[in-house]
Amino acid sequence: MKMFEVRVLDLEFESQTIVMNESDAEELHVGLGSRVKVTVDGREAIANTSFSSFLVARGEIGVCRSLVKLLGVSGGEQATLEVMTPPLALEYVRKKMKGEELSYNEIFAIIQSIAKEELSSAEITAFVLAQYFKGMSDREIEALTISMAESGEKLRFKEKTYDKHSVGGVPGNKVSLLIVPIIAASGLLIPKTSSKAITSPSGTADTMEVLAPVTFTIDEFREIVERVGGAIVWGGGLNIAPVDDIIIRVEHPLMIDPLPQMIASILAKKLAVGVNNMVLDIPIGRGCKAQSKEDAEKLAAKFLKIGGKLGINIQCGITYGGQPVGYTVGPTLEAKEALEALMGRGPMSLVEKATALAGILLEMGERAEIGQGHVVAKDILRNGKALLKMREIIEAQGGDPHVKPDDLPVGEHVATIKAENDGYVVDVDNEAVKLIARAAGAPTDKGAGIILRFKRGYKVSKGDVLMEIHSENERRLSKAVELALSLIPVRVEGMLLGRVLRDNAL
Amino acid sequence: MKMFEVRVLDLEFESQTIVMNESDAEELHVGLGSRVKVTVDGREAIANTSFSSFLVARGEIGVCRSLVKLLGVSGGEQATLEVMTPPLALEYVRKKMKGEELSYNEIFAIIQSIAKEELSSAEITAFVLAQYFKGMSDREIEALTISMAESGEKLRFKEKTYDKHSVGGVPGNKVSLLIVPIIAASGLLIPKTSSKAITSPSGTADTMEVLAPVTFTIDEFREIVERVGGAIVWGGGLNIAPVDDIIIRVEHPLMIDPLPQMIASILAKKLAVGVNNMVLDIPIGRGCKAQSKEDAEKLAAKFLKIGGKLGINIQCGITYGGQPVGYTVGPTLEAKEALEALMGRGPMSLVEKATALAGILLEMGERAEIGQGHVVAKDILRNGKALLKMREIIEAQGGDPHVKPDDLPVGEHVATIKAENDGYVVDVDNEAVKLIARAAGAPTDKGAGIILRFKRGYKVSKGDVLMEIHSENERRLSKAVELALSLIPVRVEGMLLGRVLRDNAL
Repeated sequence: MKMFEVRVLDLEFESQTIVMNESDAEELHVGLGSRVKVTVDGREAIANTSFSSFLVARGEIGVCRSLVKLLGVSGGEQATLEVMTPPLALEYVRKKMKGEELSYNEIFAIIQSIAKEELSSAEITAFVLAQYFKGMSDREIEALTISMAESGEKLRFKEKTYDKHSVGGVPGNKVSLLIVPIIAASGLLIPKTSSKAITSPSGTADTMEVLAPVTFTIDEFREIVERVGGAIVWGGGLNIAPVDDIIIRVEHPLMIDPLPQMIASILAKKLAVGVNNMVLDIPIGRGCKAQSKEDAEKLAAKFLKIGGKLGINIQCGITYGGQPVGYTVGPTLEAKEALEALMGRGPMSLVEKATALAGILLEMGERAEIGQGHVVAKDILRNGKALLKMREIIEAQGGDPHVKPDDLPVGEHVATIKAENDGYVVDVDNEAVKLIARAAGAPTDKGAGIILRFKRGYKVSKGDVLMEIHSENERRLSKAVELALSLIPVRVEGMLLGRVLRDNAL
Repeated sequence: MKMFEVRVLDLEFESQTIVMNESDAEELHVGLGSRVKVTVDGREAIANTSFSSFLVARGEIGVCRSLVKLLGVSGGEQATLEVMTPPLALEYVRKKMKGEELSYNEIFAIIQSIAKEELSSAEITAFVLAQYFKGMSDREIEALTISMAESGEKLRFKEKTYDKHSVGGVPGNKVSLLIVPIIAASGLLIPKTSSKAITSPSGTADTMEVLAPVTFTIDEFREIVERVGGAIVWGGGLNIAPVDDIIIRVEHPLMIDPLPQMIASILAKKLAVGVNNMVLDIPIGRGCKAQSKEDAEKLAAKFLKIGGKLGINIQCGITYGGQPVGYTVGPTLEAKEALEALMGRGPMSLVEKATALAGILLEMGERAEIGQGHVVAKDILRNGKALLKMREIIEAQGGDPHVKPDDLPVGEHVATIKAENDGYVVDVDNEAVKLIARAAGAPTDKGAGIILRFKRGYKVSKGDVLMEIHSENERRLSKAVELALSLIPVRVEGMLLGRVLRDNAL
């Protein structure tokens, strides 16, 4: 077998890539874009092939940065190349495309192949779309969940663990920053992993990151949770169920999230970190996963069933998701509001939702009588124990435990949107709020976001400020304002929704 | 807007790629793998982003070879970058995924976006899979065909044109090398574009390439056809319906070819080169598109209907596809057999099929009375006019017009597979034949392939040679032989299909 000398290239690609000399490629019948297995000292990696005529000489292969890590090379090593035949997993993907049920081993093989980058993004898309069009049985979802959990790091705690998760869709949903310290303060373990925003203005990990670092190894995470009872860290940093991140990357442009994949995505991460009990928040409303109570109940039943088979005891809380939770949207603004709430000055919509969900966990963990969880959760919040626990968690994660809401800087560039007439607020549009906050710079610019001054049902007078937009940058602020004027995020009864400037009948 | 200096990189990727300095990328919020629009002097191209820390300095962008051509740069130019927002076409793909019917304009936008590389291979996969799972109306297929034809070069002849196409699946199908000269010899124009093999051991373009070059520009192609009445060229070289090639690349690993895409793929290329009349060969048999006569008739009806709307007059010939056509498989072996047939020494299965299909075209072109086409085609073949015309075509395409079958060198490494007992041949397996010929090196190694000594219904005696395998390379020959011994491509009645060496019951 022909040997190649490894040459390290100062290049980084979205997927693993090697550069071959094109004469070598021609001689060996390797086509542009072919998938090859590179082997160096027994370590293997799969890569796409690109060509060069001079940059990489004959007998050399150039390897990109991520491959350098994976193969542990520094240049000069001897490597062998092998053109990949299509993995067996591709056959199983085609089987699923035909609508057939896959076995545990077949699903496991697909997930393993995704993890090893043996499947291209187009092939992964085919797998996700087969789920989208053909659905999956409960047994398949179970296999998918276990396989994804097995694709990365795993954790087991000695004590029982508790967790909260939301299926998402509602902006301003900073409830985890209240629920985690309430539960930890009650003496239960809550190892909360959360995500960074993909399409929303702030994920829980983005919001927490304003108060403390969120990127830890799995061992650091375990240590923090065991020491202070809880943590709020970024799941993406822990290498748990890493295949899920790869799958999300292909789902995102297509805006699909097939039910089997959504359930497996959530439960695989819980399984990986050893969660035994979970409350699942299912908001109902426009732009949410569930549009009606019936939808939510169906979704809940599915989660309960699959969770049960996997040994995760789940209870679902169906919540109102028709407008943002609390008044703020964007990492820093949300962190401030959560901190205010822990200090006893939070808005009702935030406090009620957080304590209701925390209450369910307290009842599951026998820290409250059945029916008393909500009250006990409010007590822990009101008597300051939750705030104290949150400061411990912040400190354990390397943040400033003495942080005050006013210490947190928000975007200096501010614009206000005012009411054009008197009336009642009839709608606050989740989608519009998300788009405007993102246009202002959230979540990348932590200080960017929105403060709502009124919510549904409030009476406003002409000229009242309906919302403030904060940005770190004048250009982004202008874009956000432009969007706010066209999308009408806060709708006041009787307001003009459009103006006909002249007769269009002609 | 920030300007970048263009730096030409000696790198070639499967898709358009630029390399940015990672500090620039961070500052401008450009993620790894983001799709950006690069503009230089008003010329635009879409590319994927990769990063470098030293190879490309701040303020520079590295461009790969295919972009160098597209943008017409040589280094040192000023370029601007713009992160692409998802194209509207992606919304239409999602609409199709929901099963909605797309308008002409929506399909046109999707095809344009594929042509401009605005859609990723995963997004193109989603479009093809939406067709696979949801189907397409006749109007959608029509729009798809026109849009694909519009994506590349187009040709119009002054006279009416005739063409033959096979939906494929049968190995050894060298009939076009007989049909084109028969039709051209009758005085009709036959501008035949054909494909190179993707999964088969030899496409018509691969076989013709043994006799003459097949890669031409659209103007060279027109000139040859107008001068000698016919040509057999590689469609991929003409830049006709280039989007089809992009789509085929994503279909191939998934082994799908949804009906709407298959019809549009064939008809778009015919539309592009101005074909008015076509005979479509639909073989029936294992491994073919049609499994039964009913399947074939349904497929034919669909082609006739869509063809009619597009102004292509189609007649279908349903043919037997249960075993290879003629006795040879592989580019050179097939070219030899076609030449022998033109010289009057062809096997019946080849001659009958070719003249039957040519006969339909002769009737369509009023060169034969209805019902007499087959006879007239055989006459043109027998009286040597087809051979003479073939030599003209070979010369016009730059080959040796005096070529004799024995001039064509086949693989020197030969193995034979022999009958293990007396009996009748009950099956010659198309799929096995294809796999063995490809293992021997076809179509890349022109001289590699198979000669069948017997076909279905023949009586053989123990020790008779059933097939010869030719290869240019000892290693590939061994692999092909190994495959032949396990796949049993030629099955003799009464032969042992497996041997139980000892009792498995234990």
